[in-house]
Amino acid sequence: MLTKTARDAFIALILGSVAALAQVPAATRTLTNPKFQAAEDFIAADHDRLVREIIQLTEIEAPPFKEEKRAKAFAEMLRQSGLSDVDIDAEGNVIGVRKGIGTGPLIAIAAHLDTVFPEGTNVKVRREGTKLRAPGVGDDSRALAVLLAIVRALDAAKIQTASDILFIGNVGEEGPGDLRGVKYLFQKGPYKDKIKMFISLDPYGPGNDITVGGIGSKRFKVTFKGPGGHSFGSFGLVSPAYALGNGIAKLSRMPVPSRPKTTFNVGVIGGGTSVNSIPFESWMDVDIRSETKEELNKAVETFTKLMREAAEEENRTRSTSQGKVEVEVKLIGDRPFGQIAMSAPIVQTAASIVEGLGMTPAYGVSSTDSNIPMSMGIPALTLESGGMGGRNHTLDEWIDVEKPTSVRGINASMGILLALAGLQ
Amino acid sequence: MLTKTARDAFIALILGSVAALAQVPAATRTLTNPKFQAAEDFIAADHDRLVREIIQLTEIEAPPFKEEKRAKAFAEMLRQSGLSDVDIDAEGNVIGVRKGIGTGPLIAIAAHLDTVFPEGTNVKVRREGTKLRAPGVGDDSRALAVLLAIVRALDAAKIQTASDILFIGNVGEEGPGDLRGVKYLFQKGPYKDKIKMFISLDPYGPGNDITVGGIGSKRFKVTFKGPGGHSFGSFGLVSPAYALGNGIAKLSRMPVPSRPKTTFNVGVIGGGTSVNSIPFESWMDVDIRSETKEELNKAVETFTKLMREAAEEENRTRSTSQGKVEVEVKLIGDRPFGQIAMSAPIVQTAASIVEGLGMTPAYGVSSTDSNIPMSMGIPALTLESGGMGGRNHTLDEWIDVEKPTSVRGINASMGILLALAGLQ
Repeated sequence: MLTKTARDAFIALILGSVAALAQVPAATRTLTNPKFQAAEDFIAADHDRLVREIIQLTEIEAPPFKEEKRAKAFAEMLRQSGLSDVDIDAEGNVIGVRKGIGTGPLIAIAAHLDTVFPEGTNVKVRREGTKLRAPGVGDDSRALAVLLAIVRALDAAKIQTASDILFIGNVGEEGPGDLRGVKYLFQKGPYKDKIKMFISLDPYGPGNDITVGGIGSKRFKVTFKGPGGHSFGSFGLVSPAYALGNGIAKLSRMPVPSRPKTTFNVGVIGGGTSVNSIPFESWMDVDIRSETKEELNKAVETFTKLMREAAEEENRTRSTSQGKVEVEVKLIGDRPFGQIAMSAPIVQTAASIVEGLGMTPAYGVSSTDSNIPMSMGIPALTLESGGMGGRNHTLDEWIDVEKPTSVRGINASMGILLALAGLQ
Repeated sequence: MLTKTARDAFIALILGSVAALAQVPAATRTLTNPKFQAAEDFIAADHDRLVREIIQLTEIEAPPFKEEKRAKAFAEMLRQSGLSDVDIDAEGNVIGVRKGIGTGPLIAIAAHLDTVFPEGTNVKVRREGTKLRAPGVGDDSRALAVLLAIVRALDAAKIQTASDILFIGNVGEEGPGDLRGVKYLFQKGPYKDKIKMFISLDPYGPGNDITVGGIGSKRFKVTFKGPGGHSFGSFGLVSPAYALGNGIAKLSRMPVPSRPKTTFNVGVIGGGTSVNSIPFESWMDVDIRSETKEELNKAVETFTKLMREAAEEENRTRSTSQGKVEVEVKLIGDRPFGQIAMSAPIVQTAASIVEGLGMTPAYGVSSTDSNIPMSMGIPALTLESGGMGGRNHTLDEWIDVEKPTSVRGINASMGILLALAGLQ
């Protein structure tokens, strides 16, 4: 998903290189095409259905690796919205095809099915005026519903494109999914080598953010193991829990640069069998990201050293008579860096559409599904799905479906898609 | 379960008050009764079945609060061993009655059904010569099987006692169980106010350890809560994971006296939803114990202060713009202190039997099911179930069923039981 703070940091880095954008002919042709205007009108008229479908999709749980139920529902909704050729691939991605006239390169637009929330999370949407509150409502359920609305708008406006367009609800964008959905799409599945442009809608936002760079991230499972023992009888033996606590405390103090922005996070922790046993295993999942490969590698190196120190300190502090604490730092996720040149047609076209709709383009970097095509040299952007929102990845996540801002963001995405797909 | 180090610490404290024990008539009468000798012979002859039943019971999982399956099997095995009157009470304790001639006070002997190991732990017993290896094999499966062997031996030797004897496989000794089985037994169930003496067999050991004091323990669930957020986008916000890590590190350095022995333990930890989300909740279960009430209270007070410090430090270190980290320290277990006077008949009798079987009594304190009757002023002891073993509460737990040591320990327990129950 797209992060605003990343954009703020990054825009300062690249602003010098962004000249005032020339009008791009494809963008102008799109915005002035009566069929596009008819599609815009449809989006406005269809807005209540969009809101209903956001709610409907949000309320189907979709934890990492457990997206099947939402995938099935989304496939059915794609069909009901007018796509005839809808399938779920071997990885679990929902893919619907909208045929063009066959004269343009294949383009894909995707939103991700998965959320960060585990099974059993209350995903019931609470509505307060134009605000919808629920875990996952904005990241990325809104974008899934926007894809459906765009499909309907294209049909309603009788739009034809040069390119075939793939509408995709993909799995595995969040956390442990490690981009498995798009990795399959671009590196293994039937569309490998065929998709020539890619747009990811992720997450909410007014529509002027254009993510042109994929932030690299590495994810680790750190496991401290020890001999275990009885809490009272074996008191004084080394404990993986103390090594982990010390490791977390050390990591929390690790210096990282604010520019290029570099971050770390302790996500999930676990281990231990009972309150009255010294654990034989304590673990945590750690996410490290940076805007540059160099800083990412530096942070990973320091982090790994800190984990070893934590284990060594535990072995020096308490008794190793029954065995030492050992630490394993295992790579569980690796998102490649990627960058699209500011002069690339896909960026120029997107910027022209955003400007044409009265907004100011803002360029950012993030870690999203676009990392994969970007890292392979395939033109790709991550765009916002419209509307305002906040607190994603928390139980307090919310979006505002207040109509003008919601509609304008959708129109921006739809306009960029059509300009790239060759609106006839 | 009994802890050797507790004994070593405690024996030094009380040794001064233990005079050379006088021969106790009931003990002498028991050891010289041909029926007891016949029962001893039976235990030796029956030993292969004991080993089979230890394996059988160990291989039925019995996590805290999930003892039902093992309880049902144990009830059936009690019946097969000759007890006619076997029931499972409302808390889940298996209770079988062996009627006496009605002239003695009701006595209960118990082993606990539960282990510290969660569902899914591999509890398959690996046998290497006389060694049996499996989680829970000694703590307390062996003792359950010993109860069955004693029932059979009493019948085989046609033994009658003055007292009725309850043979009990009780729930909830370990960890979160918080002694719920014996609490129900002594404070709520149909035998409330009726049991006048109590023996807990827990765990393995050669048979000379006599636990005469119940160590107090308090258990806590510490939960740090915060606003959560995206790992990259919200980097810099306070995190419950860092507060927890800092809290664990602080606790690991908490000074506690070695005499009276006072201990702490971080058992189970958890929290967080995904690697790329700042958790909104991180927690740990903590066990604090001491040989004296004063030191226990002191340790609990310091521990609580450290947890508050950890939360405050996190709120000073990172941004609270989306909310602060709050900490909750909740009492989840409270085991009362208890002490049996060294001059009490139950202690003197037990010591005489142990000496009569050629061993030297060793007195200890621990935190076991006996804490409850001890705290209520009901004479109670925790004894060993025979044989050697080690590493309980770990996946490497083992016992040695080498016959002479195994049988002698059983004979000690059986002798103490019969001396107290009034062997006719």
